[in-house]
Amino acid sequence: MSKPPTVEDVARVAGVSRQTVSNVLNSPAIVREETRERVQRAIADLAYRPHAAARRLRTRRSSTIGIHLDPYLGGISGVILDRFVHALTERASARGMRVLIYSARTAEEEIERLADLIDGAEVDAVVVTGTFFGDPRTGWLLEREVPFVSFGRPWGGEDVYRSRHTWVDVDGAAGTRAATQHAMSTAGPRVGFFGWPAGSGTGDDRERGWREAMADAEATGPRFESVDGLAVAREVMSAAFADPAMLAGLDALVCVSDAHAVGAHLAAADAGRRSLPVIGFDNTPVAEALGISSIEQSPELVAAAVLDLLMGTTGQAVTLRERASAPEHVLVEPRLIVR
Amino acid sequence: MSKPPTVEDVARVAGVSRQTVSNVLNSPAIVREETRERVQRAIADLAYRPHAAARRLRTRRSSTIGIHLDPYLGGISGVILDRFVHALTERASARGMRVLIYSARTAEEEIERLADLIDGAEVDAVVVTGTFFGDPRTGWLLEREVPFVSFGRPWGGEDVYRSRHTWVDVDGAAGTRAATQHAMSTAGPRVGFFGWPAGSGTGDDRERGWREAMADAEATGPRFESVDGLAVAREVMSAAFADPAMLAGLDALVCVSDAHAVGAHLAAADAGRRSLPVIGFDNTPVAEALGISSIEQSPELVAAAVLDLLMGTTGQAVTLRERASAPEHVLVEPRLIVR
Repeated sequence: MSKPPTVEDVARVAGVSRQTVSNVLNSPAIVREETRERVQRAIADLAYRPHAAARRLRTRRSSTIGIHLDPYLGGISGVILDRFVHALTERASARGMRVLIYSARTAEEEIERLADLIDGAEVDAVVVTGTFFGDPRTGWLLEREVPFVSFGRPWGGEDVYRSRHTWVDVDGAAGTRAATQHAMSTAGPRVGFFGWPAGSGTGDDRERGWREAMADAEATGPRFESVDGLAVAREVMSAAFADPAMLAGLDALVCVSDAHAVGAHLAAADAGRRSLPVIGFDNTPVAEALGISSIEQSPELVAAAVLDLLMGTTGQAVTLRERASAPEHVLVEPRLIVR
Repeated sequence: MSKPPTVEDVARVAGVSRQTVSNVLNSPAIVREETRERVQRAIADLAYRPHAAARRLRTRRSSTIGIHLDPYLGGISGVILDRFVHALTERASARGMRVLIYSARTAEEEIERLADLIDGAEVDAVVVTGTFFGDPRTGWLLEREVPFVSFGRPWGGEDVYRSRHTWVDVDGAAGTRAATQHAMSTAGPRVGFFGWPAGSGTGDDRERGWREAMADAEATGPRFESVDGLAVAREVMSAAFADPAMLAGLDALVCVSDAHAVGAHLAAADAGRRSLPVIGFDNTPVAEALGISSIEQSPELVAAAVLDLLMGTTGQAVTLRERASAPEHVLVEPRLIVR
């Protein structure tokens, strides 16, 4: 009996790269229609079955991916991680894998849970979310030689791109850069930024995109900051807009989150300028409901990339040793949704 | 060696019911502080370990609960099921159980997935969500003798309260009744209802609460309807408010969902009456952001009740045969959040 066809065979027959075949299998929406059809013809001609390897894996192990589910904290941005978990579940199911969710309130508690799950062979691989500077989970997983991919960079300086582990993240700076350029070309050069207090990896990265776009255009604009939360963001901007010159001197405002954007939008409306162009980050249902432009993180694309890196395009779960020799780092480019 | 203490022992020592002990373990927030302390003292005195039975179960089986994760469809109300899954995961983890999520696009596909999971002994029990009239999943689970509880009633007539299976649901009619009474006492007797087209169990139930409260008060108000979705709801109400007499004759509007409420609120603002009292259903972040009152379903209480019914207060997974003899039906009363 001949060997079953692999993703490489499909790529060769279709005249495309492995990555393109993977994209057709995992994120068909991002592949041009003509290419997609060619790859799908090759899959049909070869009778390639993308699940075969996952099934092989299942017979050997639990075929289960563990992922932490953060506690629900209210607010409007939690939807991003929920969308990621939804997409991961759908794509994992389609590849014959299970998703097991667990809760933990701290990184240390999460490590305890993971130890239970791994010792009990209940999960084969782990997806880590919400990485932060000095995160103890990634080092622990490396040491235990558990295959894992993080949604989020190991924040904290020069080691980000030399990380020992594989990660996928959204290119926040690219998002705010595009938003700032859009605001300058449609509203005017005086674009402000409404961020979190300095010191968070994600927040500093998003602020950098605005700063760089402004510098490129030799433009300047005010910077505001507030901790997370719609109500407090609204208060901060109401206080700033109490000075009519501040509001009058602002052409647009790029924000670190939709909570900030909605707060600023409501504060501007209270101050008599409902039309102030405000751009948020996360493209939440709230921004959509209020007609506020926002940067879409595309958690569905992140989920596809995470699964690709975890299972390989052949469906074979990548071992740590293979990954450690060349950990991969993927930045997904977000899209600006203009409203 | 003497038998380990049971929940009944704790109840006897504390002088409370089994249910109260269960509430202290699962929903301490809904128990009076004095009672809670008495139960906790009894738990400490007896060295009662609520996890023991769950651990016993784990050694015998997978200790895993399967739950379907609906695809992310956008919109603002999906957050309710996500909150339910979050709460279920936290409470299950605390009781030593795992939660495995799977995706499926149709009830038939869900049954296929369930068959795989159950045949592979990957789940011991199932939580069904989004029940509907003629739902094939519940009958299939009964036939396969799989322990399960549904979040949602088996809609469709007189058999609801004689259902052969155990369910937990939110008392939608009680929520809209309370909302209507609140609107009448604070805004005036002419309270309208903005619902879904007739024929959905959930929607008809919520409309009934408004209808009954209006009849009790011998009041009348207009009924509007729209399919789900903020944009279409806004269009429908804008068309209705194009007649100024319609808007002027309305004291308040109770809505079947927050999407409807936000649509109506924006339509009223467009028509020059931002202050029209509108009450939504689901208490989503969007309603909170816009300062719209809404009915809170408390999915966390539903999750606690589902786990209680699934595992029993002793932590022993209830077998179908035990449950079939007396399926339990729990209605959780929602709360009106006034803004």
